[in-house]
Amino acid sequence: MAHKTISSSQNQFIKHLVVLKEKSRERKKSGLFLIEGQRELSLAIKGNYEIETLLFYPELCSETQLNDFKISQLKHIEISKEVFQKLAYRQTTEGIIAVAKAKRHTISDLHLSSKNPLILVAEAPEKPGNIGALLRTADAANVDAVIIANPKSDLYNPNIIRSSVGCVFTNTLASGTSEDIIAFLKSAKINIYCAALQDAVNYHQQDFTQATAIVVGTEAEGLSDAWREAATQNIIIPMQGQIDSMNVSVAAGILVFEAKRQRNFK
Amino acid sequence: MAHKTISSSQNQFIKHLVVLKEKSRERKKSGLFLIEGQRELSLAIKGNYEIETLLFYPELCSETQLNDFKISQLKHIEISKEVFQKLAYRQTTEGIIAVAKAKRHTISDLHLSSKNPLILVAEAPEKPGNIGALLRTADAANVDAVIIANPKSDLYNPNIIRSSVGCVFTNTLASGTSEDIIAFLKSAKINIYCAALQDAVNYHQQDFTQATAIVVGTEAEGLSDAWREAATQNIIIPMQGQIDSMNVSVAAGILVFEAKRQRNFK
Repeated sequence: MAHKTISSSQNQFIKHLVVLKEKSRERKKSGLFLIEGQRELSLAIKGNYEIETLLFYPELCSETQLNDFKISQLKHIEISKEVFQKLAYRQTTEGIIAVAKAKRHTISDLHLSSKNPLILVAEAPEKPGNIGALLRTADAANVDAVIIANPKSDLYNPNIIRSSVGCVFTNTLASGTSEDIIAFLKSAKINIYCAALQDAVNYHQQDFTQATAIVVGTEAEGLSDAWREAATQNIIIPMQGQIDSMNVSVAAGILVFEAKRQRNFK
Repeated sequence: MAHKTISSSQNQFIKHLVVLKEKSRERKKSGLFLIEGQRELSLAIKGNYEIETLLFYPELCSETQLNDFKISQLKHIEISKEVFQKLAYRQTTEGIIAVAKAKRHTISDLHLSSKNPLILVAEAPEKPGNIGALLRTADAANVDAVIIANPKSDLYNPNIIRSSVGCVFTNTLASGTSEDIIAFLKSAKINIYCAALQDAVNYHQQDFTQATAIVVGTEAEGLSDAWREAATQNIIIPMQGQIDSMNVSVAAGILVFEAKRQRNFK
């Protein structure tokens, strides 16, 4: 048997993986995170994530199935039910947990191949479910990049990976301070359209066919002053109901797809 | 003191309210449900919901504040911290819990005042968070009605009320079997546009300016055959990413606001 086996959840390596699963701080420190599930792992590999270790629980996933991922057997570790249950975020997944290297998402590393990019920027999004929905929308629209400004957590939170159904691995991502991102967008001559009330035009009357960054804030706070001052133009979705409220990922979807429509989905 | 006081969570009435909070079955049987929070209560009153009882925890909400709601003092009940904690879904809200009468939402009761309505139909939505987001979108777009086909639960689930931020009270709602709703739409000569793949046109190339029902299914199952057979036209949002996936409330938002755009937000 080429692979190692770990059967005790008291094993030091396993204990470290539990901390990786639970603590953003530890993920940042080590540069590692966990990926659970075959689909998510496939997408991560496709997205050029480097896999350090592949743990499998043989009752749910045979080593033969692992071979599909083309990861050296030296990195395979068979785990017991006890260890799998300790590590798994969802108990119903397919018996695979990978340890992967986080990518750097600094804004200075962001390379845009399109001359006429469409970018989605979200400032300080909080709920993993909303971030996941934003990433799914961004994947569907095939935007050139998703940029998280002033992130509240790292993007490798298991809840984000899960709610994005793996789209965290398929999008081109960057994060940084709002100031750095504004400087980047300005130097790249990308128009900044902020979802904000002041002096706003209705979103469907704004031309998004040139280089565009659509910027959304949080539902509670909106965008910070820095963004509103940097805006090429503020935009709003006309609200005609009794409550001036919309889910942030729904609003982002409406704005991004209006840009796509204007660009004829090209 | 005009109002009653209940201090024990063992009180039979309070025990019944706990069951109302937790069980869809009990809500359906009794025709009652709980509303928590001042904002939600205001919206329910504005939406003509009848309030049977108003419980308040005086450390968080004075009886003077209650008077804003113009509900007879005979219906006021002061509750202890113990009772409030037992009943409250969120511990951080404003010390108000109301017992309200559910409305009937049968499709035969649905009255549309517009000659050219825009309706959102969701078949069997499951997650309260998605239903809440759909209701917020529907409120913002001021659609003529939201119809839930083959509902999986009642609409007065505390999670739905909360995630809709009260939009469950501001929308015109109906629910029923898919068959009954299709019959209603057809008899009202409302075009049925189903988010479904077969023979679909791109959503932005479909004219939504005539009487329109936009129909979405679940992310896992899509729409049932009945809807696809009843469709005037199936529509799709072009997907250009690596994953053919979008959050259902985001997709509904994109479709409804494309209809709003075509109608010039009138």
